[in-house]
This record gives sequence, C-alpha cells and structure tokens, in this order.
Amino acid sequence: MTTVLKLGGSVITQKETPETVADAALQQAAEAITGTDDRLVVVHGGGSFGHHHAAKYGVSTTAGTHDDDAIRAIHGAMKRLNRAVIEALTDAGVPAVPVHPFSAGHRTPDGTLQFANAPAATMLGEGFVPVLHGDVVSQETAGATILSGDELVVSLARALSADRVGVCSAVPGVYDTDGDVIDRIESFEDVADAVGESDETDVTGGMAGKVSALLSLDASASIFGLEELDGFIDGADPGTRIG
Amino acid sequence: MTTVLKLGGSVITQKETPETVADAALQQAAEAITGTDDRLVVVHGGGSFGHHHAAKYGVSTTAGTHDDDAIRAIHGAMKRLNRAVIEALTDAGVPAVPVHPFSAGHRTPDGTLQFANAPAATMLGEGFVPVLHGDVVSQETAGATILSGDELVVSLARALSADRVGVCSAVPGVYDTDGDVIDRIESFEDVADAVGESDETDVTGGMAGKVSALLSLDASASIFGLEELDGFIDGADPGTRIG
Repeated sequence: MTTVLKLGGSVITQKETPETVADAALQQAAEAITGTDDRLVVVHGGGSFGHHHAAKYGVSTTAGTHDDDAIRAIHGAMKRLNRAVIEALTDAGVPAVPVHPFSAGHRTPDGTLQFANAPAATMLGEGFVPVLHGDVVSQETAGATILSGDELVVSLARALSADRVGVCSAVPGVYDTDGDVIDRIESFEDVADAVGESDETDVTGGMAGKVSALLSLDASASIFGLEELDGFIDGADPGTRIG
Repeated sequence: MTTVLKLGGSVITQKETPETVADAALQQAAEAITGTDDRLVVVHGGGSFGHHHAAKYGVSTTAGTHDDDAIRAIHGAMKRLNRAVIEALTDAGVPAVPVHPFSAGHRTPDGTLQFANAPAATMLGEGFVPVLHGDVVSQETAGATILSGDELVVSLARALSADRVGVCSAVPGVYDTDGDVIDRIESFEDVADAVGESDETDVTGGMAGKVSALLSLDASASIFGLEELDGFIDGADPGTRIG
C-alpha cells in the first residue's frame, strides 16, 4: 500500500507570521504519521515560509522569474520549513528524509512538469519516508516558476501508483453551500456551485483546483482536517472523499 | 561552450577541522569564476563536511546504509557546505543556485548511477549556475551509498555534453614519479607507475580514479591547483591536461 500525504502549509505554519512553524500542530501530525505501515510519501505546502517570498518577487505557477535571488529566497525558505518537518517526524520516530523538488524537477516551455520520481521511489522501497515540499522549479524559457505542493501530490500519486491520497488541510473537508462538509464528491459538477470555477491547471491552493485534480486520480483521495489525520492513517476516509 | 568545474573539498574546506570552510580559498575561487561567459556547472566535494559523517556511519560509494540518521547527517552537512559555496558565489556576482543530488539521483542494485540531469540542464539554459555536491544517494537493495563529487563530474560532463572539465584540487596537477607535474596524460598506461592502480569505479578521491574517469570523457579535462583557476576560466589548460 502506497500513500501520498499532503500536510497543508496552513496546518503546519502560522500563516500570519513569516517563517513561523505551528509547533503543536506539526508535532500532532508527526505523531499521527508514526501509526502507518504503508509506504508513505509526505508533501508539505509553503504556508508562511514560501508564499511571501513568492509574492515579493512576483513568481507564481505561471509567472516565471530569471532573478536568481528570487529562486534562492523561495527555495531557501522552503528548505528551512522542510528541515522543521523532517525534525518533527524524526523526533516522533519516522525515518524521514528530504527531497527538494528544485533539484528533481523542471517544466517544459508550456509549463508541463517533468519530475524525477525514481529517487523518491527508491527511498520508499528502501524503507525511508521521503518528505517533499512546494518549491520553485526551473522552466524552459521562463526561468523558474512555483511548483505547488498540491500539484506535486497529484504528480507523485500518479507516478508512484499510489493507492491512497490524503490532503490534511486547515478545514475539515469541502464545504457545501450551507457550510456543511460534503461526505463524498464523485464529479466536479456536484460541487461546482460550492467551490467555484476551476480548471485542471489551477492547483495553487484553491479548493476547486484541489478537488478537480484529485478527481483525475485513480487513487482514493480524502480532504480532512488535522483532527482526522489519525483516522486517515488508520485506513478511514475522513472529511470529504474525492472520487 | 559548457564547462563543468569541480571545486575539491580539500580546496574549499579546512580538512583537519570538522565543518570548517576555507573562506579565503573559497572567495578566491568564487572571484575567478565570475570571469566566465560559459554555461557553467559547479560541483564541489565534501572535505571536512561530508567525509567524517560518512566514516562515522561506515557509508561509502559501495557500502550502503539503511540508517536514516546517517543519510540526514551526511546530506545535512553537505547542504551546509553547499550553502557556504552558494553564498560565496553570489557575493561575487555569480547567479548560483543549489542542486542536491540526493533529490535527483539514485543507484540501481549493481551501483549504476541514474541521475536526473534535466533540472540542471534547464537551469543552465536559463542563465543560472547550478551548484551540485558530493552527497548520499538512495540505492536499490543497499539503502543509500555515497555519490562522490568526482563521479558526479564525470556523469554530468557526459550527460550535458560538456566541452571542458576542470578539476580544481589541492595539488597543482598530477605528479610523475619525480614529483614534477605532468603536462599531459593521453592514456592511463603513461602514468600507472606514478598514480598507482585504479579501476573505473574508483572515484572516491584518489588521483588514479580521477585520471581514469576523466580519460573516458570526450571533453577536454584539466587537473590544476587553485592558483590556476583564473587561467582555466580564461580558456587555458593549466596543470595536467587529461586526454
């Protein structure tokens, strides 16, 4: 059983304070993760580490930069957050090792992501837990653009033929128009009113993009809050099941 | 013109003192590098950062480990050195960006290196200077083994069709049996007496392995000391020319 688990940037960082880890939440997540016997890949978002640097330099998933200062600032901040995540996981007993997407991926001129999955797959096979993160990646003709944690989750789930995908976010699931958590979403039309417009390439953090991208996977996917991570690790489908 | 430049770990670190950068030497190297208009890839060795962790955990290019502490210790030390190299380069005005081999490469069970060169190639094409380093890499069935800077130089030179390879080391070139620097080596037999036995897989820092591996390249290669780096960057073939 191979599982890809996303830890949302807004779960593990304090979004309002630049480069501040939400220590208690991160520790809670790390302890929940010790409960698994699956082959597990962890991907975390940027929260208050990556986003303000990306905004400052005007870099997004589609707007590139040739400013090497921008690349180092965004990538450096994400590596600092990754170090904190790895430390929390290893303190809890998880054999976590870091994988930095800037080193492993790039985009073609039209923005298509090419990612070297073999290193992470080898780590999985050898019993390690690779921990990846949203990052910058180089892009032909555009310099470098953002690779969001959400896009990476979908790419890895497909490449590693994941059985399960979990997205641990700051909300307990996808809300309907009444503000209640939807139990299951089987097609985008079911929830278009509630989550708003989306297209396949909108994977920059919005719920519509998450739902749309997760629907495209063969794997069973769930979006849930931190309190439900234990249940997800134990095999349940908490929050909103997608697909 | 594509150039791959190795900065020896014994050049840029103080080998006797754990995790200590040789600041003046590193700054001198960084300033020399600003003189190039080539597409440049930099690879640095481990010196006093990587080697003692590798020795402590008993990990080598062929002896693997399944201890995730060992991976994080070696990889973490090499990222600290890489940060110092990147900082020296950017202080000198070089648009340097980091590439961490553990994220980009792995070995098959027989030890063959598979490395994702496309990210570094894309960075080169976009005007950045990727800076890689000796590291650990995951290896199928063996956990993780060492990837030396020398092995990486040869792999990158081949994959990127480099025109020139420079190995900046602690000695001014390859010595003959009289202790004089050999001007040019065209076959391994010429120098077998002076550098000792070698085989293709001995790329762990010995001169015999370096010479043997560089001879296998199409690119013009030179081994020289730090004082000659300026000359190499300007297009000369200082020290010992290989091939």
